[in-house]
Amino acid sequence: MLDTSSIYEQGLQRRTANHTPLSPLTFVKRAASIFPDKIAVIDGRRRFTYLELYRRCLRLASALQARGIGSQDTVAVLAPNSSALIEAHYGIGMAGAVLNTINTRLDADTIRFILTHGEAKAVLVDNELCSVAREAISQLESPPFVFDIVDPDADNGERIGEMDYEALLATGDEHFQWQLPDDEWTALALNYTSGTTGDPKGVVYHHRGAHLNAVGNALGFGLTAETIYLWTLPMFHCNGWSQNWAVTLMGGTHVCLRKVEAAAIYRLIEEYKVTHLSGAPIVLNMLAHASERPQKPYPRVIQIATGGAPPPSSVIERMESLGFKVTHLYGLTESYGPASFCLPQPEWSELDNQARCARMARQGVPMPMLADLMVANPDTLTPVAADGKEIGEILLRGNTLMKGYLKNPTATEKAFKDGWFHTGDLAVVHADGYIEIKDRAKDLIISGGENISTVEIEEVLYRHPSVMEAAVVAKPDNKWGETPCAFVTLNPGATPVTDKDIMEWCRAHLAHFKCPRVVVFAPLPKTSTGKVQKFELREQAKHL
Amino acid sequence: MLDTSSIYEQGLQRRTANHTPLSPLTFVKRAASIFPDKIAVIDGRRRFTYLELYRRCLRLASALQARGIGSQDTVAVLAPNSSALIEAHYGIGMAGAVLNTINTRLDADTIRFILTHGEAKAVLVDNELCSVAREAISQLESPPFVFDIVDPDADNGERIGEMDYEALLATGDEHFQWQLPDDEWTALALNYTSGTTGDPKGVVYHHRGAHLNAVGNALGFGLTAETIYLWTLPMFHCNGWSQNWAVTLMGGTHVCLRKVEAAAIYRLIEEYKVTHLSGAPIVLNMLAHASERPQKPYPRVIQIATGGAPPPSSVIERMESLGFKVTHLYGLTESYGPASFCLPQPEWSELDNQARCARMARQGVPMPMLADLMVANPDTLTPVAADGKEIGEILLRGNTLMKGYLKNPTATEKAFKDGWFHTGDLAVVHADGYIEIKDRAKDLIISGGENISTVEIEEVLYRHPSVMEAAVVAKPDNKWGETPCAFVTLNPGATPVTDKDIMEWCRAHLAHFKCPRVVVFAPLPKTSTGKVQKFELREQAKHL
Repeated sequence: MLDTSSIYEQGLQRRTANHTPLSPLTFVKRAASIFPDKIAVIDGRRRFTYLELYRRCLRLASALQARGIGSQDTVAVLAPNSSALIEAHYGIGMAGAVLNTINTRLDADTIRFILTHGEAKAVLVDNELCSVAREAISQLESPPFVFDIVDPDADNGERIGEMDYEALLATGDEHFQWQLPDDEWTALALNYTSGTTGDPKGVVYHHRGAHLNAVGNALGFGLTAETIYLWTLPMFHCNGWSQNWAVTLMGGTHVCLRKVEAAAIYRLIEEYKVTHLSGAPIVLNMLAHASERPQKPYPRVIQIATGGAPPPSSVIERMESLGFKVTHLYGLTESYGPASFCLPQPEWSELDNQARCARMARQGVPMPMLADLMVANPDTLTPVAADGKEIGEILLRGNTLMKGYLKNPTATEKAFKDGWFHTGDLAVVHADGYIEIKDRAKDLIISGGENISTVEIEEVLYRHPSVMEAAVVAKPDNKWGETPCAFVTLNPGATPVTDKDIMEWCRAHLAHFKCPRVVVFAPLPKTSTGKVQKFELREQAKHL
Repeated sequence: MLDTSSIYEQGLQRRTANHTPLSPLTFVKRAASIFPDKIAVIDGRRRFTYLELYRRCLRLASALQARGIGSQDTVAVLAPNSSALIEAHYGIGMAGAVLNTINTRLDADTIRFILTHGEAKAVLVDNELCSVAREAISQLESPPFVFDIVDPDADNGERIGEMDYEALLATGDEHFQWQLPDDEWTALALNYTSGTTGDPKGVVYHHRGAHLNAVGNALGFGLTAETIYLWTLPMFHCNGWSQNWAVTLMGGTHVCLRKVEAAAIYRLIEEYKVTHLSGAPIVLNMLAHASERPQKPYPRVIQIATGGAPPPSSVIERMESLGFKVTHLYGLTESYGPASFCLPQPEWSELDNQARCARMARQGVPMPMLADLMVANPDTLTPVAADGKEIGEILLRGNTLMKGYLKNPTATEKAFKDGWFHTGDLAVVHADGYIEIKDRAKDLIISGGENISTVEIEEVLYRHPSVMEAAVVAKPDNKWGETPCAFVTLNPGATPVTDKDIMEWCRAHLAHFKCPRVVVFAPLPKTSTGKVQKFELREQAKHL
């Protein structure tokens, strides 16, 4: 690869002094040396400084190694956002092992599938999840080591492991000499996709990608040493969009949160002067509607990042009216979380609020560390016109894409076909180069030969004053092939509305062929990560 | 290196889609796609948007390739801070070539040495440097291509090249398809050290290091898309401490400056609402004393980074009183500029001004992207005690250290001995882990067996109300071996002082054995990068 005949290659090879693997594990060591006495983690009544956090990570790493867990062994963690889960993000890697955070809302069968497929050698289980974990683990052929994480502030259930997590740490060595991997391509984390259909897929992260996406988050979301980061985003979700590593990179403070409840969130924002938090649009929606919301906007700027699903612009608008500054991030588990972000252009400040929030609801431009993003025909790789109309698939390329799917070469090859990662998300490119998602490939409605974006209809539904949540799916139709069918949840205390009212609202704001033919008032079924289960709604729509 | 038997290595190899070389060249492409119409460069009366900048870089790259200049050929640039020099930072690399920025203050002999040693195939010469360049080039055995950069706003001399730079660009293709190098270890830039003794050494930078130190600068110096960066720092100095790439990474605006003069700097700060600038302590000192300085502090925060020599705390204090926020960066050409920075700790805000500025004058803690920094005995690698007293050498390790010295294996091996880069700077480590430079290894005074830091004495001299600049060197002494000898420049309009006054000031603020025995009032000789030439002062001191 290198031109070895060049004068620039004579005696100028990589050496220990000038070439070290990129890894987010180094961040906690650096933070401990720069900010030894600064609070790194607030978890209920407990506080850990960066030096304490680092020492707990060293103890965890050495205690795992003492049990024979090391290079490229999988260590799973089933826990809500907590100090132990933060420690797992460093200590497990320092042992040379691979961190597998598991979605805490999964059922025992799925957890068992993940532990089996990922070949977990050890599992850390938060005590509040002991029942589901016991059921999942009891039927494993090769039972892993199990350790109970016991939160002194929480309701504690039965112990299912051989030892409490704190006792495990006590067996460790806080002066443990850990090693970076030789190669930054080494696996660091394993994250299973939520898998709306079929078995979940195990997305493998490497050290290089995690390091770089942490950097990208710090630059893109404006994290600094002054950041007080509230964990409203589950850390099991792409390692908290790589923000766990990013906050530590900058030496900010992590504030843990076990349950996403508006009252607790608003209390912690006040108590700790939170500067940054993140969450899916439904979390923002919940905060915007909560009775505990502030009566007047916060006097200081609180940064909130949202992603995981296209945010309705009305949700952005409502959050802004409370004093939050919204950053819209787009990404997938396969891209370590954020791959693009909606960086505001200076001239947007001249737009009216609604128009500006509509811009901010777009998926935007590549994150600082992503090499390439293209919206194109996935077969020919021809980019779409930048006209805001032609739909193509979002394709990504760069160091912040997964190694691939664990033990699934077919899915890996398919995802990386032709040198690009295929997101399965359909989008347009506006004249300013900003992308906007129109749908997941499988969600797009084709009616009488016309493409209809369910996201566009949902955007209009969310603007109806009585609507709290909305989802649109295709309903089979003999004449048109498919027609849009809307499922709607109303605001608590909303003025009563009929399906006719909703349809009229849509006809006033959308081309008529895009308007829902059927409107159903019902709660929306959600996946364990809070995404609307459109496949279930499609099933329901078939029989309406 | 990778454990190929692991499940995490089966079918999960690097691919085009998930592994791309890190390179700062990508920054200008990304900025052009995100901010096509934003002003990227202001150079006198000329303005270039990011799209225009990118297209000029593409033209430069393709025009060079059309002349047979490509992979790993050296292209030298002799120019003040200007649009052409910014373009050279991207366009030359896009051609596959290596950028060699040359110090504009050098004499013809040294320039000739650099062009010969670096084997430059082409040289871009700003027209205001045509005389020295012609002299340097005329005697070369294999004459390079020469192109004249002609600034429409400047006094223009004789053309010495075959073509003007703008004409060269006109021959290029703004749709040129450039390639990243296969390997991020590929050379990107060549920077010659100022070389106070002997021939200058050619420091080779690679793409990976330049990318990462740009990221480190953006994080450490707080650069954003809103940054308006005034080029008071010469870009020929470690590529502007990697800040050229960093500003472009964030999509900030570069404001060029041909000559470092207080009047022009203060005018441009006002005219363009400059947010960031950088310079050696002597530049800050010049700004702090200039008659054009603002009468009252700026109402907004202007960030100024300083480095290249230990800044006297009095200079930091004076700059702060004008409304500048000072960030102190420490590094060398070999570390792409900044390797450490003096990140303020929250509790420093409680210190009085003088004590706080004394903290800020320390070299601090590792930059975000540096892997390791240690102050140690360079032979045994035993770290010094963190007591603020024991002196050791600053040793660095990480991706932001050079590939090595071009065609100088002896110097390369010596610099990288035992797995660390040896800076030659002597420092202590304070109890909080912050390092503080006491001297260059060769500058330390050893008097009666005691180490005396010339930096410490200079710090005291700078606090004397009549002193503008000061430098201390060793004077040979029959009894003590060496004693301190001070060279002092007084403020314009300072109250007259005698050598006795200065010595008394020192005795009031220093241990007596550290006080200068001789004080000389004279202008200080400086190197072409503005560093005081202590070897010359040592020669003078011998004969006093």
